[in-house]
Amino acid sequence: MKKIKPIKIKKEMKVSELLEEMSMAGFGARKIGGALKIMKKMLSDDQCKVFLGLAGAMVPAGMKEIIIDMLKQEKISIFVTTGANLTHDLIEALGGAHYSCDVWNDVDFSKKGFDRIHNVFMKNEVYEKLEEFFEENWEKFQNSKNIRDFLEKIGKSLPEGSNSILRTCYEKKIPLFCPGISDSGIGLMVWGRTIAGKKIQIDVFDDMKEIIDIAWSSKKSGVIYIGGGFPKNFIQQSLQFSKGATYGIQITTDRPEPGGSSGAPLEEGISWGKMKQEAKKEEDYIDVFCDATIALPLLWAGVKS
Amino acid sequence: MKKIKPIKIKKEMKVSELLEEMSMAGFGARKIGGALKIMKKMLSDDQCKVFLGLAGAMVPAGMKEIIIDMLKQEKISIFVTTGANLTHDLIEALGGAHYSCDVWNDVDFSKKGFDRIHNVFMKNEVYEKLEEFFEENWEKFQNSKNIRDFLEKIGKSLPEGSNSILRTCYEKKIPLFCPGISDSGIGLMVWGRTIAGKKIQIDVFDDMKEIIDIAWSSKKSGVIYIGGGFPKNFIQQSLQFSKGATYGIQITTDRPEPGGSSGAPLEEGISWGKMKQEAKKEEDYIDVFCDATIALPLLWAGVKS
Amino acid sequence: MKKIKPIKIKKEMKVSELLEEMSMAGFGARKIGGALKIMKKMLSDDQCKVFLGLAGAMVPAGMKEIIIDMLKQEKISIFVTTGANLTHDLIEALGGAHYSCDVWNDVDFSKKGFDRIHNVFMKNEVYEKLEEFFEENWEKFQNSKNIRDFLEKIGKSLPEGSNSILRTCYEKKIPLFCPGISDSGIGLMVWGRTIAGKKIQIDVFDDMKEIIDIAWSSKKSGVIYIGGGFPKNFIQQSLQFSKGATYGIQITTDRPEPGGSSGAPLEEGISWGKMKQEAKKEEDYIDVFCDATIALPLLWAGVKS
Amino acid sequence: MKKIKPIKIKKEMKVSELLEEMSMAGFGARKIGGALKIMKKMLSDDQCKVFLGLAGAMVPAGMKEIIIDMLKQEKISIFVTTGANLTHDLIEALGGAHYSCDVWNDVDFSKKGFDRIHNVFMKNEVYEKLEEFFEENWEKFQNSKNIRDFLEKIGKSLPEGSNSILRTCYEKKIPLFCPGISDSGIGLMVWGRTIAGKKIQIDVFDDMKEIIDIAWSSKKSGVIYIGGGFPKNFIQQSLQFSKGATYGIQITTDRPEPGGSSGAPLEEGISWGKMKQEAKKEEDYIDVFCDATIALPLLWAGVKS
Repeated sequence: MKKIKPIKIKKEMKVSELLEEMSMAGFGARKIGGALKIMKKMLSDDQCKVFLGLAGAMVPAGMKEIIIDMLKQEKISIFVTTGANLTHDLIEALGGAHYSCDVWNDVDFSKKGFDRIHNVFMKNEVYEKLEEFFEENWEKFQNSKNIRDFLEKIGKSLPEGSNSILRTCYEKKIPLFCPGISDSGIGLMVWGRTIAGKKIQIDVFDDMKEIIDIAWSSKKSGVIYIGGGFPKNFIQQSLQFSKGATYGIQITTDRPEPGGSSGAPLEEGISWGKMKQEAKKEEDYIDVFCDATIALPLLWAGVKS
Repeated sequence: MKKIKPIKIKKEMKVSELLEEMSMAGFGARKIGGALKIMKKMLSDDQCKVFLGLAGAMVPAGMKEIIIDMLKQEKISIFVTTGANLTHDLIEALGGAHYSCDVWNDVDFSKKGFDRIHNVFMKNEVYEKLEEFFEENWEKFQNSKNIRDFLEKIGKSLPEGSNSILRTCYEKKIPLFCPGISDSGIGLMVWGRTIAGKKIQIDVFDDMKEIIDIAWSSKKSGVIYIGGGFPKNFIQQSLQFSKGATYGIQITTDRPEPGGSSGAPLEEGISWGKMKQEAKKEEDYIDVFCDATIALPLLWAGVKS
Repeated sequence: MKKIKPIKIKKEMKVSELLEEMSMAGFGARKIGGALKIMKKMLSDDQCKVFLGLAGAMVPAGMKEIIIDMLKQEKISIFVTTGANLTHDLIEALGGAHYSCDVWNDVDFSKKGFDRIHNVFMKNEVYEKLEEFFEENWEKFQNSKNIRDFLEKIGKSLPEGSNSILRTCYEKKIPLFCPGISDSGIGLMVWGRTIAGKKIQIDVFDDMKEIIDIAWSSKKSGVIYIGGGFPKNFIQQSLQFSKGATYGIQITTDRPEPGGSSGAPLEEGISWGKMKQEAKKEEDYIDVFCDATIALPLLWAGVKS
Repeated sequence: MKKIKPIKIKKEMKVSELLEEMSMAGFGARKIGGALKIMKKMLSDDQCKVFLGLAGAMVPAGMKEIIIDMLKQEKISIFVTTGANLTHDLIEALGGAHYSCDVWNDVDFSKKGFDRIHNVFMKNEVYEKLEEFFEENWEKFQNSKNIRDFLEKIGKSLPEGSNSILRTCYEKKIPLFCPGISDSGIGLMVWGRTIAGKKIQIDVFDDMKEIIDIAWSSKKSGVIYIGGGFPKNFIQQSLQFSKGATYGIQITTDRPEPGGSSGAPLEEGISWGKMKQEAKKEEDYIDVFCDATIALPLLWAGVKS
């Protein structure tokens, strides 16, 4: 039996010290502390391939640098995210920006050409730079084998050293998947070209082979789900063809009761073979109920210490 | 100023009578009542094209008949759903079933070959029938123009009058979109064939043209979002090319604070031009915070009365 | 193994028919259906004392008639609610009203003297009638044995047949508890008198004896928690001195993760002896994740059929 | 227009540095950063009386040291909490402990005499020490003017320097309110004595005078709500007799839609006069959607830097 140790805050405390304290407390505090321990285990296990799924508008919310840093550590084997995150990443790589808003009126925003994402917005005009980018690089994208390859080509087309998720995946050779790419601004750019008669054809099913191959051939695997959506589901699906994940962390505020994949606890994955039968709750896998923009910076600061 | 009228329950009450009472109460009760009024307006407006987005495992949860009934009323112009819902629909069309579980152990379920989805499960063996179906009909799917066309071909391959969403969309000629099709059991069936060398190529971007064309050419549009995910986002994206939706209903339990598309209130869409600037909150569009398996049957029973 | 039966909606459907359908579906639909069955068992078990806890501003939201109807059925043995609900009940009994608001500005509301409760508001001026009532009846309240007795005296002071929770509990001799009475408009009325030198003294601990005696002497007990708060906790506490509840229903949207009593699943009560060890999940007790203004009318309409 | 600045994590980062980064990001991260700024303003404003409300089982979860530290800083003018938190505080002051559990079975726990609170539990036997304490000190509690006075006498009865909220409030002369005291283990101790014929009488309404007097006489006030419940509501009620709070922070994961006080945004208080009309959203008051066991340690570490 392990006693709860009340959290003590000291002056000039380091994040790692706070997380250590949290790991000995209760409720969500202990979950964050526990998630850090699992994340460290997963990232330092040389036999383990780490699958990172990222949903929610994490780039507009300012999580980009953390993701890039995670990717640069060369511990992420597979990265799956939404078309929206990649679009916002590309927008920033091309000089666009996101802004904060604390009060707003959506009708006014519409008139000003401001697109709102909760307490963040961007100017509609960012699409102009996107258009230019796709216009200039269109030919490079023609013979994309699949979506992953298409995204790699986008990353390759950005200047070296660009502070971008797309570029980092390219430079670090991390397979970047986005099965829902058509559901995004990048998709709209492709649509814009194709209605102008500039044909491209990218197969929707081809990526599956690559992600399933990686899952299949992994000795061990670990998952980090920041938000749910198809990034989580696409990874989960591939893991059915693995031995089941050895480690898992999930950060979401979605409820399990309405039965969607995003809110499903990791434990449910055991029944499907997505998570190992032997995996222990809270020790090997953990569900963290927290806004990812709070939990992710905490965890990453903990890992970096 | 409108007084709150306390809800009176009478014996043998009809759902429509209860909903009428709820529309004069407060909190979520009034939201359900209000959503019904908007749904009726939307469905009876001949100029309005209705876009239905369905996420979450609604077929396993027993919402299939309601969806099929909605589609058969010929009031839904566009239907977007997840690959999972279509897979489960196909599974049932091929004779498979879903079962209820109130207590469970995921390790036991794994050993028994039971795949759990919250308080519902199915047997792993359902995939055998899926395999057979794809094996038998594979050639028919070869020349699919896009995902919508591929799904139409699946629907066409089912027996006439099958009690199925896929079949109903085919019979009723309702465009059925699923940008994330690779992220599903149907995707796995395609993967299984392609690794066996049976090639198929379906373009991931081509569907956009069709849905955007419909949005663009609509005099008026209305949206019904049951859950969020890419079904919502894909419709929202296409509406940027319309005059903005005139009507909207959203049923979700996701929080808006973590900033994901699924939890974003419909009002946010005004800033993007996805919802009309003139649309009035609670009168033209409404966000219902409720498990869809509770709210949807209520609303549909209200519409049918 | 019980197959999920998809919900079928028919024309002019009765609420009871819909609930029967819901009980054979999945997710929250089945929970509502299951809660109805447990509620019926509990209310028809002659040996069972039913403890009803009501939190959240259910009177402003229009749930008053349902609660009164529940109390009039003479199946509720104990009723615990918040001071707020009793204050709003008294306000309505004295001729005041609640109004609906769909859009609002809190600064404007403040200037107009409108007090907002989510999408409901009342006029500040309702307090005048409350003041008069307490002024006129003050002497009757002097020798209140405890809070329950004080509330009974308030109920007694209302005209016979008043459409009021307070009056109904008095007429039906249902013990009405409200440990947090000082945290309410009724509390403010008492405060107003006492600062004017009109002394009253009501012991804060005396009610415990009565509720614990009822719990202690019950052969069987059942709990219905609409919202959490102290109404739930006060009942749970008394049940530690019973054999543990045989039946239980809880309707709440609070999360369990932050560890508060309001969001705690009923199962947790087994460890404390508040719920029987033999009680079966989903058959004897059930947690419903739903806005109570949606779930309660549904359930009560189901019971009344 | 303020650009979102992506959060950068550096090695050995201090919590204060992380919070500064978070304040320039989006979604919940910015909320935490904003809450820190408001907390610092509130605590350093000499004219401002700070009302702290604490609900949820924060002592079992290991938040005790932070609360004690907050109280010792002599910046908290009023403290309102639940009887449960005070009971658990007293239990620990008397040598009892709380333990962590990551997996559990409530029937087993019941048999072992373990009382569970989410992922924390305590042994039933802790009540023995409580009994002894009340038995020994009972006479001291006899002439308690009101609940606050009773709690002060409990604090006084603990050894000097006890690591306890009750003791700290006594030593620091911070008025400690708990309108729902009967709804707790401390209440049960009183009940135990009174049924043994050891009379005590504590008026339930008398505390209101004291808290309202403090609110009334405050030049400025600020509120910190950790969780909702009656601690929040009791403070909010008293503020109707003030000029309205100048500053406010609320940490809760409760939804606003079901209309309860716990989930109501601070802005709603403006309509009631509980919050100043001039108070600016996100600058003067802010709602943080986060498990308090995560947000509170972060914020307090930020304040202490």
